[in-house]
Amino acid sequence: MKSFLYPTINPPSFTWVRPESGKGSKVHEWIQPITASTDPEESKNAEVVVLGVPLSRSSISASGASEFPEAFRRSWRSFTTYNLEDDVDLSEMTVLDAGDVPMHVTDIGKCHDNIIQASALVHSHFQSSKVCGIGGDHSITAMMVKGLHEAKPTEKIGILQFDTHFDLRDMSDNGPSNGTPMRNLIESGVVEGSNMYNIGLHGFFNTKDLKQYADEKGVNYFTLRETRKKGIEATVLQCLEELSSKVDTIYLTVDMDVLDIAYAPGVPASTPGGMTTEELLEGVLVAGKHPKVKAMDIVCLDPFKDTLVQQTVKLGTHVFLTFLTGVMLRQGASI
Amino acid sequence: MKSFLYPTINPPSFTWVRPESGKGSKVHEWIQPITASTDPEESKNAEVVVLGVPLSRSSISASGASEFPEAFRRSWRSFTTYNLEDDVDLSEMTVLDAGDVPMHVTDIGKCHDNIIQASALVHSHFQSSKVCGIGGDHSITAMMVKGLHEAKPTEKIGILQFDTHFDLRDMSDNGPSNGTPMRNLIESGVVEGSNMYNIGLHGFFNTKDLKQYADEKGVNYFTLRETRKKGIEATVLQCLEELSSKVDTIYLTVDMDVLDIAYAPGVPASTPGGMTTEELLEGVLVAGKHPKVKAMDIVCLDPFKDTLVQQTVKLGTHVFLTFLTGVMLRQGASI
Amino acid sequence: MKSFLYPTINPPSFTWVRPESGKGSKVHEWIQPITASTDPEESKNAEVVVLGVPLSRSSISASGASEFPEAFRRSWRSFTTYNLEDDVDLSEMTVLDAGDVPMHVTDIGKCHDNIIQASALVHSHFQSSKVCGIGGDHSITAMMVKGLHEAKPTEKIGILQFDTHFDLRDMSDNGPSNGTPMRNLIESGVVEGSNMYNIGLHGFFNTKDLKQYADEKGVNYFTLRETRKKGIEATVLQCLEELSSKVDTIYLTVDMDVLDIAYAPGVPASTPGGMTTEELLEGVLVAGKHPKVKAMDIVCLDPFKDTLVQQTVKLGTHVFLTFLTGVMLRQGASI
Amino acid sequence: MKSFLYPTINPPSFTWVRPESGKGSKVHEWIQPITASTDPEESKNAEVVVLGVPLSRSSISASGASEFPEAFRRSWRSFTTYNLEDDVDLSEMTVLDAGDVPMHVTDIGKCHDNIIQASALVHSHFQSSKVCGIGGDHSITAMMVKGLHEAKPTEKIGILQFDTHFDLRDMSDNGPSNGTPMRNLIESGVVEGSNMYNIGLHGFFNTKDLKQYADEKGVNYFTLRETRKKGIEATVLQCLEELSSKVDTIYLTVDMDVLDIAYAPGVPASTPGGMTTEELLEGVLVAGKHPKVKAMDIVCLDPFKDTLVQQTVKLGTHVFLTFLTGVMLRQGASI
Amino acid sequence: MKSFLYPTINPPSFTWVRPESGKGSKVHEWIQPITASTDPEESKNAEVVVLGVPLSRSSISASGASEFPEAFRRSWRSFTTYNLEDDVDLSEMTVLDAGDVPMHVTDIGKCHDNIIQASALVHSHFQSSKVCGIGGDHSITAMMVKGLHEAKPTEKIGILQFDTHFDLRDMSDNGPSNGTPMRNLIESGVVEGSNMYNIGLHGFFNTKDLKQYADEKGVNYFTLRETRKKGIEATVLQCLEELSSKVDTIYLTVDMDVLDIAYAPGVPASTPGGMTTEELLEGVLVAGKHPKVKAMDIVCLDPFKDTLVQQTVKLGTHVFLTFLTGVMLRQGASI
Amino acid sequence: MKSFLYPTINPPSFTWVRPESGKGSKVHEWIQPITASTDPEESKNAEVVVLGVPLSRSSISASGASEFPEAFRRSWRSFTTYNLEDDVDLSEMTVLDAGDVPMHVTDIGKCHDNIIQASALVHSHFQSSKVCGIGGDHSITAMMVKGLHEAKPTEKIGILQFDTHFDLRDMSDNGPSNGTPMRNLIESGVVEGSNMYNIGLHGFFNTKDLKQYADEKGVNYFTLRETRKKGIEATVLQCLEELSSKVDTIYLTVDMDVLDIAYAPGVPASTPGGMTTEELLEGVLVAGKHPKVKAMDIVCLDPFKDTLVQQTVKLGTHVFLTFLTGVMLRQGASI
Repeated sequence: MKSFLYPTINPPSFTWVRPESGKGSKVHEWIQPITASTDPEESKNAEVVVLGVPLSRSSISASGASEFPEAFRRSWRSFTTYNLEDDVDLSEMTVLDAGDVPMHVTDIGKCHDNIIQASALVHSHFQSSKVCGIGGDHSITAMMVKGLHEAKPTEKIGILQFDTHFDLRDMSDNGPSNGTPMRNLIESGVVEGSNMYNIGLHGFFNTKDLKQYADEKGVNYFTLRETRKKGIEATVLQCLEELSSKVDTIYLTVDMDVLDIAYAPGVPASTPGGMTTEELLEGVLVAGKHPKVKAMDIVCLDPFKDTLVQQTVKLGTHVFLTFLTGVMLRQGASI
Repeated sequence: MKSFLYPTINPPSFTWVRPESGKGSKVHEWIQPITASTDPEESKNAEVVVLGVPLSRSSISASGASEFPEAFRRSWRSFTTYNLEDDVDLSEMTVLDAGDVPMHVTDIGKCHDNIIQASALVHSHFQSSKVCGIGGDHSITAMMVKGLHEAKPTEKIGILQFDTHFDLRDMSDNGPSNGTPMRNLIESGVVEGSNMYNIGLHGFFNTKDLKQYADEKGVNYFTLRETRKKGIEATVLQCLEELSSKVDTIYLTVDMDVLDIAYAPGVPASTPGGMTTEELLEGVLVAGKHPKVKAMDIVCLDPFKDTLVQQTVKLGTHVFLTFLTGVMLRQGASI
Repeated sequence: MKSFLYPTINPPSFTWVRPESGKGSKVHEWIQPITASTDPEESKNAEVVVLGVPLSRSSISASGASEFPEAFRRSWRSFTTYNLEDDVDLSEMTVLDAGDVPMHVTDIGKCHDNIIQASALVHSHFQSSKVCGIGGDHSITAMMVKGLHEAKPTEKIGILQFDTHFDLRDMSDNGPSNGTPMRNLIESGVVEGSNMYNIGLHGFFNTKDLKQYADEKGVNYFTLRETRKKGIEATVLQCLEELSSKVDTIYLTVDMDVLDIAYAPGVPASTPGGMTTEELLEGVLVAGKHPKVKAMDIVCLDPFKDTLVQQTVKLGTHVFLTFLTGVMLRQGASI
Repeated sequence: MKSFLYPTINPPSFTWVRPESGKGSKVHEWIQPITASTDPEESKNAEVVVLGVPLSRSSISASGASEFPEAFRRSWRSFTTYNLEDDVDLSEMTVLDAGDVPMHVTDIGKCHDNIIQASALVHSHFQSSKVCGIGGDHSITAMMVKGLHEAKPTEKIGILQFDTHFDLRDMSDNGPSNGTPMRNLIESGVVEGSNMYNIGLHGFFNTKDLKQYADEKGVNYFTLRETRKKGIEATVLQCLEELSSKVDTIYLTVDMDVLDIAYAPGVPASTPGGMTTEELLEGVLVAGKHPKVKAMDIVCLDPFKDTLVQQTVKLGTHVFLTFLTGVMLRQGASI
Repeated sequence: MKSFLYPTINPPSFTWVRPESGKGSKVHEWIQPITASTDPEESKNAEVVVLGVPLSRSSISASGASEFPEAFRRSWRSFTTYNLEDDVDLSEMTVLDAGDVPMHVTDIGKCHDNIIQASALVHSHFQSSKVCGIGGDHSITAMMVKGLHEAKPTEKIGILQFDTHFDLRDMSDNGPSNGTPMRNLIESGVVEGSNMYNIGLHGFFNTKDLKQYADEKGVNYFTLRETRKKGIEATVLQCLEELSSKVDTIYLTVDMDVLDIAYAPGVPASTPGGMTTEELLEGVLVAGKHPKVKAMDIVCLDPFKDTLVQQTVKLGTHVFLTFLTGVMLRQGASI
Repeated sequence: MKSFLYPTINPPSFTWVRPESGKGSKVHEWIQPITASTDPEESKNAEVVVLGVPLSRSSISASGASEFPEAFRRSWRSFTTYNLEDDVDLSEMTVLDAGDVPMHVTDIGKCHDNIIQASALVHSHFQSSKVCGIGGDHSITAMMVKGLHEAKPTEKIGILQFDTHFDLRDMSDNGPSNGTPMRNLIESGVVEGSNMYNIGLHGFFNTKDLKQYADEKGVNYFTLRETRKKGIEATVLQCLEELSSKVDTIYLTVDMDVLDIAYAPGVPASTPGGMTTEELLEGVLVAGKHPKVKAMDIVCLDPFKDTLVQQTVKLGTHVFLTFLTGVMLRQGASI
């Protein structure tokens, strides 16, 4: 059952039974797992590749975000491939599920190395695909980006981040936890602070010294209040415009804790006064349309904390599908 | 204890004890159950008649929406009859609770027939009353409308629908389930596609062929994005205006899954990116004011899935009371 | 992806990815789904065949028991194949997962017919296998037994039932609901009342006329108090002994509502004062050992009502594995 | 709608619709509310009278036990009147629901006075009926007993208590809270300490000085460990025997916190290591059979804390029905 | 361990261990409990004093709002002192936690007296501090304001209220419950009706006679619809402007039930159609900036009803921190 | 605020405010935190020392057991120091709370080293105290025992384990996770397999090769079925007797997953068919009485998964207090 990506990447733990015809109207009937029978060459041109990154033991607070990749795949059944509002049928694109990065139980460093290697492998093999990392906690972002950098060392990378936090904590305190990915990337020289754009900061969830560090490093940020004043679409467009003038590749990272806690009960770090679902989806759609946005991730969603009806897991999947809608609209546009 | 509607309609399973004076300030002290002592003639002129439709075994996904009529009645105690914002006291209207349509455990066809008969009986007897069906899953709408059609065969019927879905699935697959009511009405000739107006479609919850069927049949629809751009009030007004130029009676159906899942945790089919409570209440108020809107229903609310504080049940009742506010404002206006 | 049982039986909706070696230590790595590549002849001799029966729209109260087959399969990962207490490794047996009986959304009669056909097909093809039906509500038992009867018309069938209820309600009221399976079998002549043995009745959950009907038909029953006085093992052994002197095949049906509500929060019909987990598992183990017990089912478990840690789903799976332990111990014994 | 007990006692807030025939097989179709049309004389001979006592603002910890009387009535639908294990049909007895004691929101003393008056009225009017108080927190017991004493001043009263606590706290600290009822009765001279029998004390939930007070006053108690060693039935029989040699009337009070927290999640004060459901039901049955047990109550059950399937509320109702079974068995015996 | 406020005010039940340096970046490391070693004189000039008011047995519906002060203190760890959006570090202010008002279990009048005394003591000692009362139910507001009046009898007091309700119920019915604080203040002459400004009324949660009473007494109110039309900031500013022309001190009371039930699941009286978090925080910020707003409270938040991730408790704390941000911005401004 | 144990051990994150008198009747008023003012010499003779070990990122499945030490301390308020059944007042013993072992976020090896050091320090300083480790996941047991071994290298150590699992997994797979502590101790030579006694194994939760390893190493084990046949008390006594003839010190480890899932919903790895609360408490009491049992731990309890009323956390604390009761009874006995 192992694919050509094995053992760098494990296959998904389960696979949906697909309809006879090979094509159905639901997301779980459409996305194709990469299996032993997947042809490496043919698969190369997939528009999108999904990579599960089930790591959350690196989280500062106890977290079950490692369970999101599986919950994400289970939720596919609740979605069709057709987006009525944009009159777009995602099933015209090929989306492959590469499976999950293998993790070690007690050696977090090894987990992080595994993510870097898996990311590098995916970005190397699927040169033109959009790569979607499904976390996991936010520590994975640094590793996903490092892997991208390893695969395409000549491409300058910028980051568009939706987050309630800077994620610029000092790594010397507690290593590369979920509070550090942006600093990790700055300090390792993979991304410059001035090529980072953070949208959604608000409330009492960052310390003053983190802001000072951000300012020193030239990190760009828009508080939620500023974002709302300007408009989410305009804010994201401005970030993308600035970024695209400076970098070759934009990596989009969606920390689900940017959302108001009423919209994201399954994100323990979500807070009162955060973004609405509508705002986040609008922002992600705009980002998805930009040709330089070539990779993204969704992090910090803990299905154990979710409601009976899986409100937050469904929202996580909706963010993913919205990003794909952007990708597809762009493709349509480019014809 | 049986009323003059028996056995077509069962009395409610329980009745609130009413205050001595016969009139209190709470909704449960005001709405009157139709009982053995209710005079058929006198009751005829009630402004509003409530009919419980506790059927959800016809739902595609397992659903406890059959429990909503009872939960609805229990929630009355949390509401007064007085709406401060519109300075309207609903208790000036007579609202009767006709009870529930009797259901069969294993013969869904019989359940549906029972709903048609009950609807026909209510619409025949209460010729000028607004009839409010309390579902139940969305399959009941087709039956409620058929009953209305049976009672008033010469009246042309149009539909105003708040929904995340088209509800236009092919009945040859799985019979008249909750995915089919609009198609059921089109195919049975009771309502023309072009007299259907659907507000709130969004996301990845409809298939492309359903859209094509809708287009073929001339079904009108406004996605949530379009609705927000235009404004909810303006959108509803436009639908009502168009409808009132074409039909005699407008039937309002509120599928609670139109709401964002943060606002409707007790609606398993509610989704991320749906309507806010404020938007739905505004839309229902506008609809309630229109004289041609003579019947409505509220469907797909499963109290088993609701929160500890019954968030969604209370919202369902609020939708009902908001509709009644519209009715009353209109009446005031017409004086 | 369709197996040789298709279209009478659908494959499971998903399949676990199995280890390279073909054999692992967890239940999900061991039980084999019947797929397109399963050889009909070879598979014939499987010791056990699992059949999902996802029907609960026939339940008197709204129920999500239709979701148990899938939850059951998901829970496999929490169990190893090795039972330390009996020093038995179930993986020495071949257990096949035949998939699920296809269901219709609005025609319950058709659902029931489908179950009969699927049961008949399984019992015909897998002549010597133990067949385990995974419900669904209790209405399925009548259909599973009818299918068994159809497949093996010359075998006299008896029933061993763990239940809080008689399940002898009159079918003329509401058709073949979950309150009727035993009466259904008596009235259809498939099983004689005197060949039915019910263990676990207690409390205020049956009406007097059902007891009278049971007495008239010679149905045997042991209240929970009697069972505890005699001992669960002794009680089950007595039932099996009496049954085996009268019938060729014993069908074991486990209505999970026999359990105390503290042990089975995910069974809405479970009650205070019911069996403990220990008692039920002991009873099922004894039954599993008996060579004439050739089929069994587990019913009325609604995963939607279960706790955060899936207490009841895990218990349902434990009942299944305990039955298999009995089967295996018997096999060992017979060598 | 007011009964002859009004205004000392309010009618229940709602009434179940009863079957045409006047008699059904479910508890809610059997127990009769006392209404305006209830004849005072005829009703006198009811075997049992239920009195709701919705007070819990007197509880030391914040409690919703005031909601139990209503939840209790709602749960009736889940029970039949027929107890198979004892072959007893409760519907042969007349059970009346007197309604609820009216409560004041901010004057707890007035609430307590109201309970005394209501209890006195019920005991005076229904001289030979068993009176069942449905709490409410444990402070109500002192008041129910005082009312009984007021109605029948010549009868000497003893108490049989199932409890994790002594409930002998000093009233001078915080008034007649739920920690004080037994001391309240001793200090007011209504019941002597030596006529109190407490079963079920265990764990770390009483202070040493309460034990000393109990010993000084001659309060009898059996820890749970002692009770289990002796057997629950034998323990209760011994208490009853001793009591009946000393008093005229035995008042049974069931503090649901005597149960293990696994059996009573809806009782915030329930603890690990408490009674099982089976034990409590056995004890209550024995007590119900004793002719001198003429009144009882069930207290400290908070429906707000209960599980999705209302595990604890159902258990509370089961305790009540089990007591009635005892009453009926005794009546049968006495014939 | 008792402070100089004892016994009028108890110390908090627990204290956070503070960092060596005496200063940390989290709220729980910053706010200082008043203990035995607190110097009365030095402490006088604290910018803010917190007073817990754990009373909710005076609530009309059973409530656990008495648990909010403790939950509030526990939640501090989830917040930093730095507000990025306003670039304000609250830790530049001194905030003292005075502890909790002692309560009596069964004498609500005594509880209310204790609150008055505690409020008077705090306002007397901390003449220039902002006093923040942490409820508790809304009955405490009348007492907190009476205490303020007692301490500063010459200051004319006005009230700015965020609420879904008038809280003008007649005290002769049920005493000074949580439905009465505004009427209590009017009738006791402490605040004139015309100096009360209520923002957020909506829906079916007030009776008509309360509106009439409000109108008679000149109470000012803005329904939520009016507020949204005008803008929350503008509405609050108008209230503050009018108030500051008439009174010396403005007391801000935030009844958390003003919020939509989706935003405040832990407020049992919250309703569909209420304020969003964003609106409330904006309103509170504006109020906090006004120099005449010298005291505030947060009431009716019941942590027992809250979600797994403590959505509402966190929101309550955010309201408090937002008020403090206003205070600090004003201070900055005044420099 | 740092104690003489700092920085090897951090003080508890919060401290309860203690009564003036220095002594109260509740557990939280009795257990004394070790603070800056604790005298090292005087404290030496404490009968019991508590050490929090908040590590669960080493758990195979995502776990919040790291939160138990804090939840444990919070729950103290629900318990008195007096055990009525044994007439023992624990407050006659001195119990110190040493605080928590400091943990690193991303370096699990460092966490484990810290535990070893903290355990060594505590065992060195408090030579004659019983040391109670409050986990955390089961990986901590190996470290706690290694620390004990380091402190007292000449003492031979044996282990009494309550567990559903062997915890003998191969460390070469995933390092010292919660599946490995017993193997870790065997392989490191700290404890011989033949000095390990495991009680409570049952069901399908161990693999056959683990049993084989156990047998090879001479690990002693009693399945739950065997334990029940022999009696829990007799089983534990036999283990203690055998152990005390072979070792100097017995370490008791209570993996809460030994409990039936109905009794321990807050232990994700608890299973159907496990121990009852009564059984575990009885076993722990017997162990506590043995003079050679000088250290113990409680592991794998995840408060995030617990019920509304904190059923499992309370049970964890009850296990601790029951152990202390044993200690005290022994002390009394030895006089």
